[in-house]
Amino acid sequence: MKIIGEKINGTRKSVAQAIKNRDEQFIISLAQSQVEAGAALLDVNAGSTPDRETDDLIWLVNTVQDAVDIQLCLDSSRPEPLKAVLKKVKQKPMINSISGESKRLKEILPLAVEHDCELIALALNESGIPKTVNERLEVIRQMVKVTRKNGLPDDNLYIDPLVLAIATDMEAGKTTLKVIQCIREEFPDVHITMGLSNISFGLPNRHLINRTFFTLALAAGMDSALMDPTEPAMREALLLTNLVLGQDRFCRNYTKAYQSGIFL
Amino acid sequence: MKIIGEKINGTRKSVAQAIKNRDEQFIISLAQSQVEAGAALLDVNAGSTPDRETDDLIWLVNTVQDAVDIQLCLDSSRPEPLKAVLKKVKQKPMINSISGESKRLKEILPLAVEHDCELIALALNESGIPKTVNERLEVIRQMVKVTRKNGLPDDNLYIDPLVLAIATDMEAGKTTLKVIQCIREEFPDVHITMGLSNISFGLPNRHLINRTFFTLALAAGMDSALMDPTEPAMREALLLTNLVLGQDRFCRNYTKAYQSGIFL
Repeated sequence: MKIIGEKINGTRKSVAQAIKNRDEQFIISLAQSQVEAGAALLDVNAGSTPDRETDDLIWLVNTVQDAVDIQLCLDSSRPEPLKAVLKKVKQKPMINSISGESKRLKEILPLAVEHDCELIALALNESGIPKTVNERLEVIRQMVKVTRKNGLPDDNLYIDPLVLAIATDMEAGKTTLKVIQCIREEFPDVHITMGLSNISFGLPNRHLINRTFFTLALAAGMDSALMDPTEPAMREALLLTNLVLGQDRFCRNYTKAYQSGIFL
Repeated sequence: MKIIGEKINGTRKSVAQAIKNRDEQFIISLAQSQVEAGAALLDVNAGSTPDRETDDLIWLVNTVQDAVDIQLCLDSSRPEPLKAVLKKVKQKPMINSISGESKRLKEILPLAVEHDCELIALALNESGIPKTVNERLEVIRQMVKVTRKNGLPDDNLYIDPLVLAIATDMEAGKTTLKVIQCIREEFPDVHITMGLSNISFGLPNRHLINRTFFTLALAAGMDSALMDPTEPAMREALLLTNLVLGQDRFCRNYTKAYQSGIFL
């Protein structure tokens, strides 16, 4: 299970401020705390102001890389900043993200292939996020066809099946869990990642809903997640799900975590 | 999801004492609190002292029935107390339990058929609890063959796939979840119930492990559970799992529970 730490994101006010002020210490502390909490990669998003994004992303990547030795997930929808920053990245890069939209596929997929990147692909296209399991799988099948044709190995592809808010679509969680199971069967070498928290949008006690969905998504076959690894409910859910699914040899991680007092 | 409230059990010291003293109020309060917390049935177990069990079970059943209007799950491994008490039961009875052991099958199954009872069947036989998925399914298939041959409708049968302790068998949870999925596919009309808490035996923070296993077992297809419905972690898990699996229309139960302040 690869956790992609989501906290260095320029669409968050405090991070945007830190980027603007070139506040290295703030960024380094976000990086270090996520790595300590178990992140295998760190997402870096420099915000989306076109005339600043390239410089900001380069500064962000350099700042993080100088502090921690970790894979980075370059989070931008535009090819220019990605091109510029790919030259600076020390470990195997991940790009976040393409989708079934032809513009992004054309611009970003070749970059990922050229630089042997891992690549997140969102299950949506020009018409938005398909509502049914079959429609969403159709978008995914089309994307995999294109990534394969362009020479991206399945093992470099991370599909995000996406989840809608359960408050507006009662079937949202069920649909996404079914999509995960189908991807797992149809494309055994492709990875599955997700931003989980959208499911609880508009409801109270969101961490409880996110935690339950996380457990069910892991059991369905998700092997990565874009999340805040420092969130206690999520750490707890990961430990417990691994334990129950037989992935914690001699209950070692669970017992260690218990002894360290992380449980709420 | 049918919850069978497990608390009126004569193997617990306080309940044994109440039975011995004919303490109606103690038993009634256990019955009422479980019904209020959502139990659809109440398990009644009068302990296993041969010369007392029949009288004690009759007293227990009468006491509970006089206080709450609910289905009872008659928990005894011997035919005599069951025979005696079946005449007293007002609603459709459930019997807990048979197993693949031929003695229990021969003695108790005919009683269940004669009185049109629901019947819990444990996935074990003379050799104990089979360790692998396939062996456990084989025991279940044999039992279903016998219950069908004797005229028990599948809809009256509640299979308990059983779960071993994860502390001694790392694969215990995974095995049982797989067995549940297979029962669901192979015997669509048969119900699946379980005593969940054995999974966490010997580990700390048992309620966290039980809760996670409950969520995963529900998603796998379990439609009943023998549990303490007043336990906050389990109530919470049931609400959240139903919500995420699309079984809570307009998020009504979740929001109501939130407003009533049940979440930890």
